[in-house]
Amino acid sequence: MRHFLSTRNLSSTSIFHILNKAEELRLQQMEIPEQVFAANLFFEPSTRTKMCFHVAQKKLGIETLDFHMETSSVTKGESLYDTAKTYEAIGAKLLVIRHQMDNWVDGLIPNLSLPVINAGSGKGEHPTQCMLDLLTIHQEFGTFTNLNVVIVGDIKHSRVARSNAYALTTLGANVYFAAAPGFEDDTLDFPYISIDEAVEMCDIMMLLRIQHERHTVQQYDSTSYLVQFGLTKERESRMKDHAIILHPAPVNRGVEIDTELVECQRSRIFKQMENGVYTRMAIMIILLKEWGYYNEAKTNKCQKITW
Amino acid sequence: MRHFLSTRNLSSTSIFHILNKAEELRLQQMEIPEQVFAANLFFEPSTRTKMCFHVAQKKLGIETLDFHMETSSVTKGESLYDTAKTYEAIGAKLLVIRHQMDNWVDGLIPNLSLPVINAGSGKGEHPTQCMLDLLTIHQEFGTFTNLNVVIVGDIKHSRVARSNAYALTTLGANVYFAAAPGFEDDTLDFPYISIDEAVEMCDIMMLLRIQHERHTVQQYDSTSYLVQFGLTKERESRMKDHAIILHPAPVNRGVEIDTELVECQRSRIFKQMENGVYTRMAIMIILLKEWGYYNEAKTNKCQKITW
Amino acid sequence: MRHFLSTRNLSSTSIFHILNKAEELRLQQMEIPEQVFAANLFFEPSTRTKMCFHVAQKKLGIETLDFHMETSSVTKGESLYDTAKTYEAIGAKLLVIRHQMDNWVDGLIPNLSLPVINAGSGKGEHPTQCMLDLLTIHQEFGTFTNLNVVIVGDIKHSRVARSNAYALTTLGANVYFAAAPGFEDDTLDFPYISIDEAVEMCDIMMLLRIQHERHTVQQYDSTSYLVQFGLTKERESRMKDHAIILHPAPVNRGVEIDTELVECQRSRIFKQMENGVYTRMAIMIILLKEWGYYNEAKTNKCQKITW
Repeated sequence: MRHFLSTRNLSSTSIFHILNKAEELRLQQMEIPEQVFAANLFFEPSTRTKMCFHVAQKKLGIETLDFHMETSSVTKGESLYDTAKTYEAIGAKLLVIRHQMDNWVDGLIPNLSLPVINAGSGKGEHPTQCMLDLLTIHQEFGTFTNLNVVIVGDIKHSRVARSNAYALTTLGANVYFAAAPGFEDDTLDFPYISIDEAVEMCDIMMLLRIQHERHTVQQYDSTSYLVQFGLTKERESRMKDHAIILHPAPVNRGVEIDTELVECQRSRIFKQMENGVYTRMAIMIILLKEWGYYNEAKTNKCQKITW
Repeated sequence: MRHFLSTRNLSSTSIFHILNKAEELRLQQMEIPEQVFAANLFFEPSTRTKMCFHVAQKKLGIETLDFHMETSSVTKGESLYDTAKTYEAIGAKLLVIRHQMDNWVDGLIPNLSLPVINAGSGKGEHPTQCMLDLLTIHQEFGTFTNLNVVIVGDIKHSRVARSNAYALTTLGANVYFAAAPGFEDDTLDFPYISIDEAVEMCDIMMLLRIQHERHTVQQYDSTSYLVQFGLTKERESRMKDHAIILHPAPVNRGVEIDTELVECQRSRIFKQMENGVYTRMAIMIILLKEWGYYNEAKTNKCQKITW
Repeated sequence: MRHFLSTRNLSSTSIFHILNKAEELRLQQMEIPEQVFAANLFFEPSTRTKMCFHVAQKKLGIETLDFHMETSSVTKGESLYDTAKTYEAIGAKLLVIRHQMDNWVDGLIPNLSLPVINAGSGKGEHPTQCMLDLLTIHQEFGTFTNLNVVIVGDIKHSRVARSNAYALTTLGANVYFAAAPGFEDDTLDFPYISIDEAVEMCDIMMLLRIQHERHTVQQYDSTSYLVQFGLTKERESRMKDHAIILHPAPVNRGVEIDTELVECQRSRIFKQMENGVYTRMAIMIILLKEWGYYNEAKTNKCQKITW
């Protein structure tokens, strides 16, 4: 067999040659060290989250299965559920999913026999972003108790705000929101303060990106937004000495924050991204071990770290 | 050299440093264990086939070269032929091709010195899908002889129907078609029966996806299609006890098949996907060995299985 | 923890489990063999250049981080600078960048602490293409001194012409241009000759692709372009015996060159692509060693060649 192009003139000998080899491979599978495949199913754009997971997977010796929505069978109408089941069937042992629906998690999990990581659910949650934010805060302060965290910006459309508000409260921090009119979220019960109060009292200022893509109308002009509600250089100068600035990025420079502050002394924005790799490694290790899908002995060849 | 950005001020010393190193690398190539690169050239959307090949390649220690039509030079007018020759030139030892033309195979093969696998040719053939269907049938029945296989649905636009009809006939099975008016294919000479006859006499019901993307007019309403020509729960209840259901997926749930039957007892739809990995591994092994491009000794470092 | 979906009910024990593991992983990093990650940031379509870099990276045991503009945060307005800083933050040790701006290099480099390779800058430069062209010429002639190189075609929009003209001059070759009216570039100071003069006096005919995507108006009909300014079979018959034909590809067959000449005896077009792998390997090795990012001892597990 020099090519494999058609069944029209394929002999039964050739067919059985293929089938026997395939069956042999299927049976061998059981006994040999198995690679671990993780599928990254991003139904919304992403640079940081997707690449952090990719790097984290490579560092753990996990094989990454990419998914390109626009060239997948999703274009033929296939649902998230059927896509997830497909990746499970072909051997994925972990799914990392970002989807525009707030509640895609519901109904998906019960029928899957592998761990799922929420890499963003519409305006719902973004729990891995939260973990990297927490790591960045902990590296700085060594604790969460009684830290004043103000989450600033487009609270209404932010899954980051939601995931952080929950976890920071669990950890004993004091969470406040600061939002321009129209950006408040009345489903979350946290005190609102003004941006000018925020800069003076916060230990951590957690800026959010304005989620233009989730807005129906453009409410604010960029420049006037920065002056009225954003972090200007003047406001930054009033922050406590030890206070730090976080932002999940991508940053709308000159909108949520003055462009010169993005890499300023108290910015931890690029530090957050670096931490994004380690927190995702940690989450994947913990889940895969829990499910028995990651075995040190099995993968020692590819293994880059001891865990 | 700290970056490589321009030739404007590049010294001849720097240029020769690069050229000598490149030539040294080219010559070393000949003597060292070579990685095997496979290029997956999908000019049409795919989840299952593309990912099965990807997983199969990783399991064999083969490096995958991806191709993204929309960001490739195809957007500058490059043809399939020139794209294939390019991947050959940069070191691919195997091409996996899906293209919307029925007959892209013609004319491509003679000028290439590497094996080509047809991963879908318009309405022509889809022989690797056929192999995984055959493996699934063989796992169930242990034979093909005198099995009644009814291929049901959009025969006219189905490369899956065509590839299976040929191979199943070669193997001694009895192949029937069942199609709604307008979905028959008069270029294939197999007996047509009704869906109601089909459910009662078949050992294997091989459902097809309605290929909306290849239709010029939408002929049927989804619900009435299911009732008139699809696999309803009522029809499924009349199937023989041992009869199984296959579908190449993606499934149009509620059109070709009642959504509740997709994961029913006699469905092998997700089993097919799993078998898709092993059959593609088998086909790649057989071809690469035939061409002398896969040598156990050469690749033992990356090798995950014995073959 | 069976999944990781939300922070709403996540206990502080679970959170600290994750954070401790993440911190442990971050600290371990320092002491263990590190993988080298290269990010290929292509903001314009590419097959050859991108795939050559991909193959070259795999052959060097470098992990590739892909970037898909249309599903990245660039769609949310993120700049090249912030994208580059992001890849640096998550661990890339090398950036390969193609971007439609002629001068994207300016301002990007000073703030990055990793090597950058220009894989195409608008109508500016394409220095890695130049290196592979040089390697191809050197393999043929063993020298550059006094070779007559005529660069033919759409000089005005060609970054390939610019990079080659600079480097060939540095190396002592005689560079001429031949261009149809409207395709001259008055910012480059090289003598223009006609295509008919070119074929008879050149040792190397370096054809360029007409950059349709950079033109505002379509100036020439394809067939008449070939006859008036392209390499017809008649013109090719007048070339010196030892003269060779280069083209960076993708080729507009029947426009810049008669389709039958693409793979003719004196064409080195596919040889150029093969050389593209080795020259990019060479450039990456040289840069990474210079920056101390590639250490033989560290990577000997993945290493495929000695360098």
